[in-house]
Amino acid sequence: MGHLKIKNGELAAGDRKILENLHGHLREQVHTFVGYPCTGEFDFTPLLPFMEFPINNVGDPFVDSTYRIHTRQIEREVLAWFAELTHFPPDQYWGYVTNGGTEGNLYGLFLARERFPAGVAYYSEDTHYSVYKNLRVLNMRHIMVKSQPSGEIDYEDLLETLRIHRDVPPIIFANIGTTMTEGVDNVGKIQEILRKLAIAEFHIHCDAALAGMTLPFQEGIPPYDFRAGIDSISISGHKFIGSPIPCGIVLAKKHYVDRIARSIEYVGTLDTTLTGSRNGITPLFLWYAIKRAGVDGFRRQVGQCLKNAQYAVEQFRKIGLEAWRNPWAITVVIPRPPAAVLKKWQIAVYGERAHVIIMPSVKIQQIDELVADIAVARQEQAKTAAKLTAPRKNHSGIKSQPKPKPKQRSKP
Amino acid sequence: MGHLKIKNGELAAGDRKILENLHGHLREQVHTFVGYPCTGEFDFTPLLPFMEFPINNVGDPFVDSTYRIHTRQIEREVLAWFAELTHFPPDQYWGYVTNGGTEGNLYGLFLARERFPAGVAYYSEDTHYSVYKNLRVLNMRHIMVKSQPSGEIDYEDLLETLRIHRDVPPIIFANIGTTMTEGVDNVGKIQEILRKLAIAEFHIHCDAALAGMTLPFQEGIPPYDFRAGIDSISISGHKFIGSPIPCGIVLAKKHYVDRIARSIEYVGTLDTTLTGSRNGITPLFLWYAIKRAGVDGFRRQVGQCLKNAQYAVEQFRKIGLEAWRNPWAITVVIPRPPAAVLKKWQIAVYGERAHVIIMPSVKIQQIDELVADIAVARQEQAKTAAKLTAPRKNHSGIKSQPKPKPKQRSKP
Repeated sequence: MGHLKIKNGELAAGDRKILENLHGHLREQVHTFVGYPCTGEFDFTPLLPFMEFPINNVGDPFVDSTYRIHTRQIEREVLAWFAELTHFPPDQYWGYVTNGGTEGNLYGLFLARERFPAGVAYYSEDTHYSVYKNLRVLNMRHIMVKSQPSGEIDYEDLLETLRIHRDVPPIIFANIGTTMTEGVDNVGKIQEILRKLAIAEFHIHCDAALAGMTLPFQEGIPPYDFRAGIDSISISGHKFIGSPIPCGIVLAKKHYVDRIARSIEYVGTLDTTLTGSRNGITPLFLWYAIKRAGVDGFRRQVGQCLKNAQYAVEQFRKIGLEAWRNPWAITVVIPRPPAAVLKKWQIAVYGERAHVIIMPSVKIQQIDELVADIAVARQEQAKTAAKLTAPRKNHSGIKSQPKPKPKQRSKP
Repeated sequence: MGHLKIKNGELAAGDRKILENLHGHLREQVHTFVGYPCTGEFDFTPLLPFMEFPINNVGDPFVDSTYRIHTRQIEREVLAWFAELTHFPPDQYWGYVTNGGTEGNLYGLFLARERFPAGVAYYSEDTHYSVYKNLRVLNMRHIMVKSQPSGEIDYEDLLETLRIHRDVPPIIFANIGTTMTEGVDNVGKIQEILRKLAIAEFHIHCDAALAGMTLPFQEGIPPYDFRAGIDSISISGHKFIGSPIPCGIVLAKKHYVDRIARSIEYVGTLDTTLTGSRNGITPLFLWYAIKRAGVDGFRRQVGQCLKNAQYAVEQFRKIGLEAWRNPWAITVVIPRPPAAVLKKWQIAVYGERAHVIIMPSVKIQQIDELVADIAVARQEQAKTAAKLTAPRKNHSGIKSQPKPKPKQRSKP
């Protein structure tokens, strides 16, 4: 798209400068963007002429509105594509394009609570931080379950926890790719536990923010979709597919939604969505990306990411880092690197762990640069540590700095 | 921006055609877009190069994140502008750019419920339909209060309802411009009622979706902002200012938000917003619009809209319609017009009432066309009615249709 060019007279010179600087700054940041599960690789330029209209997909995507500046027909095609991807039968799903994972998960939990007002939500300790907030908003009872080191839920703990709460329907919040390690909760095993405990009434919601777009294009994956008996699922659009605006889809069994539907004369549609006035641009972006890549295109992209992720694991190991990844995962887990590396590469950490996510926009060149940066930073750390542990006169406990040569110093 | 031009090879021919048709269709719809409080007049073309980045204002706008592709600095300026507009002192507000009114209202009610978990929400029967859903999501006790014909809350009913529930803190949901008539609940009068009943603990949230951008630019308005003792307020961005993507702002007293803040290491910021991953494009749009128009520009626009709204009232009356508008309102209320008019002009109805909203994009020419259309439709209705009431042999009660000439009929 090239550089930002704001014409004279459109804005004060100072304000133009602010925007130009910001645009330049963002461009720089994209190169070192390896720490979050969002690809930097997309191009929706051909669709930007739609940005001239006050588009609003207000309310239900399946019921037309008197507000006629919308892209509902496009949104429905996007939903149909995701329904096929997750094996929902054509006449048994409902859903909409959301503002992102938080809304998709909030919706799934809302439906679950409407089904089972006294239900208790179960989720592993590796669950995304927003889920706790969602449960608080919904005022739901909830219990956190232990995780395995891989990020996958601890089935033993789930079984034992469910066993002592058999009087209330469980609402299982399954992670299909945890935030830090991309661990996948196996819905087949969860169903087995429910059967074992003779629990017949339950709701399973899947948070498939990232892996909802990678698992379908791999073989031998753990069960997580309609065929595994799930009730609702949320998948992000701005993560693997990519978008300048956070977005996603939520799908649920149609008859659950019917019970919360309320016909609203004012907009001539149903108030079935959490957000009322809704973004009609992101459905266009998703539709365009889906049409361009298709299932085969995404399969190729996922394959390349997995190959690059394995490459990253190997390169990290070569410099002595205990790097690993889960099967099916494009997330590479490493020990927390030094602060300078974290900052430059926008790497997310959780305690002593960090991760790098090999999205389609992360290329071999960036992996090599990052590995080199970590190697250098670790060597420096080692040097400093050696100095600190070496016997010296200053035992005050204050970290000693390399001595400046006083005569040569000048003010910066 | 001109017509949509998608290059050969980017999409299959059929898909290109779909987008081109949709773009053309939307362009046609904008001309007759007078029924919803969203202006069709804006131009963010100069900002579209920002759409090449995976921008995400994840979490709190006032705390920087390790996710560095964001527009938080711009978002903070937008919030500061709205805080000044609503007279929040610079160090006493917190807020964020939302996905629209539903989220802003949900946030205000969420804060209120966190302050007063046992609180009861009060809202008038003219309140936007999404509020009921919000209260359901939040699992809050709520009571609907009567409205006056203007749309303004019935203070007598509010007083009597509050009187019998003095044991629980009230959460007042005030409409600063109701959906159908743009009636404004007077927060000064509400405060008086609370004082009269010696209720010291309460929360007042204002839904100022539309009027939050029109009242500040008029004189002698009812009290509704920080000076009137409100606790939180939501104002839409895509309504008066205009945007291709629904958006808005929510502001609240800072210390309420502190109590729900949770520091999230993963994104290096606070999880204070309802939506986690957040749109960073709409803050740019709002900032640009604010910088271009400024307070003086908006004052001129609001003045013009009010003048045009008064013109519309007069033109409607000239053709015999009982049109009216509230003081300070750009919404013109009319009796429900015939179906063909509703459809063509995308007019929202509620029972026997309809409204036309004179946004900056609605010009005298459109008002004249609409008035002429209604006049014609009413004449036709009158003719049909005259025919129906004239004595005739067919008294079956079935609406008689003009008789087709059987011999000339052919299959469609």
